Amino acid sequence: MSKNEFVKEITDIEENFPQWYTDVVLKAELADYTETKGFIAIRPYGYAIWENIQNYMDKKFKEIGITNLYMPVLIPESLLNKEKDHIEGFAPEVAWVTKGGEEELEENLCIRPTSETIMSTMYAKWINSWRDLPLMGNQWCNVLRWEKETRPFLRSREFLWQEGHTVHETEKEAKELTLKMLDVYADLIENVLAIPVLKGRKTEKEKFAGAEETYTVETLMHDGRALQAGTSHYFGQNFSKPFNIKFQNRDGKDEYAYQTSWGSTTRLIGAIIMAHGDNRGLKLPPRVAPIQAVIVPIAMHKEGVIDKAQELNDILKVKYRMKLDLRDSYSPGFKFNDWEMRGVPVRIEIGPKDIENNQAVLVRRDTLEKEFVKLDCIEERLGELLEKIQKNMFDECLKIRNNRTTVAHSLDEILKNLEENQGYVKTMWCGNVECENKIKEVTGAHSRCIPFEQEYLDDKCPVCGEKAEKMVIWGRQY
Amino acid sequence: MSKNEFVKEITDIEENFPQWYTDVVLKAELADYTETKGFIAIRPYGYAIWENIQNYMDKKFKEIGITNLYMPVLIPESLLNKEKDHIEGFAPEVAWVTKGGEEELEENLCIRPTSETIMSTMYAKWINSWRDLPLMGNQWCNVLRWEKETRPFLRSREFLWQEGHTVHETEKEAKELTLKMLDVYADLIENVLAIPVLKGRKTEKEKFAGAEETYTVETLMHDGRALQAGTSHYFGQNFSKPFNIKFQNRDGKDEYAYQTSWGSTTRLIGAIIMAHGDNRGLKLPPRVAPIQAVIVPIAMHKEGVIDKAQELNDILKVKYRMKLDLRDSYSPGFKFNDWEMRGVPVRIEIGPKDIENNQAVLVRRDTLEKEFVKLDCIEERLGELLEKIQKNMFDECLKIRNNRTTVAHSLDEILKNLEENQGYVKTMWCGNVECENKIKEVTGAHSRCIPFEQEYLDDKCPVCGEKAEKMVIWGRQY
Repeated sequence: MSKNEFVKEITDIEENFPQWYTDVVLKAELADYTETKGFIAIRPYGYAIWENIQNYMDKKFKEIGITNLYMPVLIPESLLNKEKDHIEGFAPEVAWVTKGGEEELEENLCIRPTSETIMSTMYAKWINSWRDLPLMGNQWCNVLRWEKETRPFLRSREFLWQEGHTVHETEKEAKELTLKMLDVYADLIENVLAIPVLKGRKTEKEKFAGAEETYTVETLMHDGRALQAGTSHYFGQNFSKPFNIKFQNRDGKDEYAYQTSWGSTTRLIGAIIMAHGDNRGLKLPPRVAPIQAVIVPIAMHKEGVIDKAQELNDILKVKYRMKLDLRDSYSPGFKFNDWEMRGVPVRIEIGPKDIENNQAVLVRRDTLEKEFVKLDCIEERLGELLEKIQKNMFDECLKIRNNRTTVAHSLDEILKNLEENQGYVKTMWCGNVECENKIKEVTGAHSRCIPFEQEYLDDKCPVCGEKAEKMVIWGRQY
Repeated sequence: MSKNEFVKEITDIEENFPQWYTDVVLKAELADYTETKGFIAIRPYGYAIWENIQNYMDKKFKEIGITNLYMPVLIPESLLNKEKDHIEGFAPEVAWVTKGGEEELEENLCIRPTSETIMSTMYAKWINSWRDLPLMGNQWCNVLRWEKETRPFLRSREFLWQEGHTVHETEKEAKELTLKMLDVYADLIENVLAIPVLKGRKTEKEKFAGAEETYTVETLMHDGRALQAGTSHYFGQNFSKPFNIKFQNRDGKDEYAYQTSWGSTTRLIGAIIMAHGDNRGLKLPPRVAPIQAVIVPIAMHKEGVIDKAQELNDILKVKYRMKLDLRDSYSPGFKFNDWEMRGVPVRIEIGPKDIENNQAVLVRRDTLEKEFVKLDCIEERLGELLEKIQKNMFDECLKIRNNRTTVAHSLDEILKNLEENQGYVKTMWCGNVECENKIKEVTGAHSRCIPFEQEYLDDKCPVCGEKAEKMVIWGRQY
C-alpha cells in the first residue's frame, strides 16, 4: 500500500494544538521544512493562498494611489545604524553578509529585516518640493529575521510580505494614511479571510522600533491565543530627520516630511489555519481558497460518469476556482477525506444515480451539510453556498472570540481568566509601562492594543490601583 | 527655476550609447543607484513595466499547469556543492551569510544565485511515484550574483526574475517542456515587448552550469550588441542523481527523474530600453507601457478645458492605461517632452479650440505623427493606434536587426563585420570549442546560439577550415 493510500491522522485539535497546526501545514501541503534551518518552503497550495491575498490587497493599494517599487535586499550596516531606536530593535535579529564572491566586504551588509532605512535614503533623493508629495511606495518581497524559535508561517527566519512606505506634507495627512492602511488590512482579514479583527493602538512598549504610533489589527486563534495580523505605523519625523527627507513647503520653506509604514505577511496564512481549522484539517474561507469546489466522480469506471463530471467542471470553472479529481488510484472515500483535510469549501459528488436523476450532491466543508441540486441549478447554487460559507465562517469565528473575551479587575483575575479561558482579557490601565511589564511577567500576556472602541470597566489600574486612563486588551500571543 | 522646469538633456544615442542608456534609466525614473554598491532601486515606473511582464507570463505559466511556490533565499554551502559543474559555475559570484543575529553560523549560507539545488532537495521529498509527475513549479523572486561591473537592469548584483523548475517521467516530456517554455519567452518578447528574437541552442561553452542542453532567445539592441533575453535548460538526470530525485515508474521500478529549468529577469526592461529608445528617450511598446496614453490639456486656465480633459480621461481609462497630466507648474511644451522621454505611446492634446471643434489631437510616440480625431471616435481610434504602434515598433526593430546581420567566411571577416556593423554575424562552425574560443579572443564576440533555423553558408569552419557542422550566430554582448 502506497504511503498516500489514506489520509494520515491529524493530531486532535483540543489535545495538542501546536502539533495539530504542524500536521495540517505539512499534510495539506501548505509548506515544508527545508535544509536551511528555520526556513520553510511554501508549497504551491500554500502559495496560491498568498497569491489570492496579494491580488486582493494589491488592488486596494493601487486604488489608494500606492505604487509598487523594489529596493535592495542588502542594507549597509551604517545605514541601518542611522535611526537609534530602529537599530536597537532590529540589530539582534538580522543576518549579515560578510563575503561577496571571493572578497571579504569592507562593510557588512544586512539582509533587510524591514526597509525603512533604505527607503528613506532613496526618498530623500527623490523628494524636493511639496509637489512631489505624497510619495507612496510599496514592495512585495522577502525579509529575514533571525528568530531562535521558528514555526511555519507564524515565525520563520524568512517570510514574504508587503511593506508600504509613504511620505507626506503634513502630520494630519500621514496620520490619516496610517489609519487608512489599517482599514485595508481589517477589510482583507474580515471580508476575505473571515476572521474578525480587533483594531487599536499599540502601547509604547509594543510599538515598532522607530515609530511614533503603531496601530494593529489583532486576531484570535482557535486555542485562544492572539495573533497580530497587520500593523501600520506613523513615524512623524523620526526617520525624515536622520535621513534628511526635506521638502520645500507651500510657503517656500524647507521642512522635514512626515512618514508612515505598514506591513502584512505570510503569517496571515497561519492565521487562516489556526482561526478556522478543525479535526478534519484545514478549513478555507471561499474568497481565499485556491480551490473553491472540488468535483469527485463516484464509480468513475461506469460509462458517462467522467464525461458528465468534466462537463460540469467546464461550466463551473468559468466562474469558480474548480478542481476535478480524476485520480484513479484512490477511492471516493479517500478523496472526500483528502479534500476536507485540504479545506476546500464545497465538494460536489456525482455518480451514475445522480446522473440518472440529473443532479449532484453538494457538501459544505464548514457544516458538512449535504444537499441534492439539479444540474441546471448548480452554477447558481454554488455561488450562494460559497457566500453562505464565507459568512458562516466569520460568524463562527466571532462567536469563539466573544466566548473567549473576559473582563478583569485585578492581576489575579487576569491570570485566572487566561488560565481558564485564554483569549482576550479586558482591563483598565494606568498607562504605566511598569504595570504592563508586571502583567506580562505574571500572566505571560502582552497588551494586544488600546482598542479604538473603548469601554468603561472601572476606575482603576488592576496592577497599581492608580487612576486608569484607558481600556487595554491583553492576550498570550503567537 | 526648479531643477524640474525642463527636461534635461539626454546624451546623443549615436554618440555614446552606454551614457544614453544611463541617462534614460535615471531621467525616465525607471531605476536609481543606491547606497548598496552594485544594487539598484527599481522605481515605480520601472516596476510597473515589470508587473506587466509578470502578469502576461504568469498567466501563460498557469495555462501550462505550472504553479508558483517559494523556496528559501539562503542555501547551505553543502547543498550548493552537490552538483559539481553547478558549483564551479556559481561559486565565484555568490554572496555569503556568515552571521545570523549575534551568532557566527556553523555553516555558511549563500544567497541564492539560482535555486536548482534547493528545489531539487525539496522535489526529492515530494516525489514518490510517476503519479506525482510532472511536478512543475515556478518562483518569482530576487537573486544575487556578485558581479564586478554592474549596469542598471542589465547586470546588477541583485535582480528580480522568475525561475521555473520542472520534473518529468521521461526525457521526451522534459525536452518538450524545455522548448515550450522557450516559446513562452519568445511570445512575450515578440508580441508584448515588440522585439524580434533569435531562437536556438547554446554551445557547450555557453550553456548553463549543470545543464545538458541550454536554449536561448537572443535579442539585438539599437547599437548592434546582443542581449540574451531568456534561457531554458534541459538537465537530463544531472541534478536528479546527486539530489536523489527518484520515482517509481509505471513498471514499478525506481528511476531518476528528468528535469528542466528556465528563467527570465528584469533585464528584459533593459532590452526594451535599448531595443526601442531614441534621442527623445524611452519608447515603450503599448502592450507593456504602464501608461498607454497621456492627456495633456492646453490652456488649462480656460474655462471648461480641465473638465473636458477629465471627461475624456474617464471614458478612456475604462479600456486603456491612462494618465491625465494636470500639473500646473509646467507648460504644455515641457509636458510633451517629458512624456515623450518617458516613452508613452500616445499623447492626446486638448485645448479650447479643439473643444470648439469637438476634437482632440493624437500624437504617436513612434513616428511623431499627429492626427485630429473627433471626440466620439477617440476611444476606438486610440485602440487602433496602439495596435499600429505595437506592430510598427516590432517592424522597425526587425529592420534594424536585418540590417545588422551579416555573413562571414573567415575570422578576419567576422572581425571586420563586427567593427563596421556590430550585430549578428553568421558563420559555419566545426563544433570545436577551440575555434569558438579563438573567435571570442580575436573579435570579442560570443556565440549567441546555434539557431533552430539553419542555413547553408559554405562547407568550412572559418577558423580551422575543417568541415563545418552547423551555422552559428556570433555577436558582442551585454
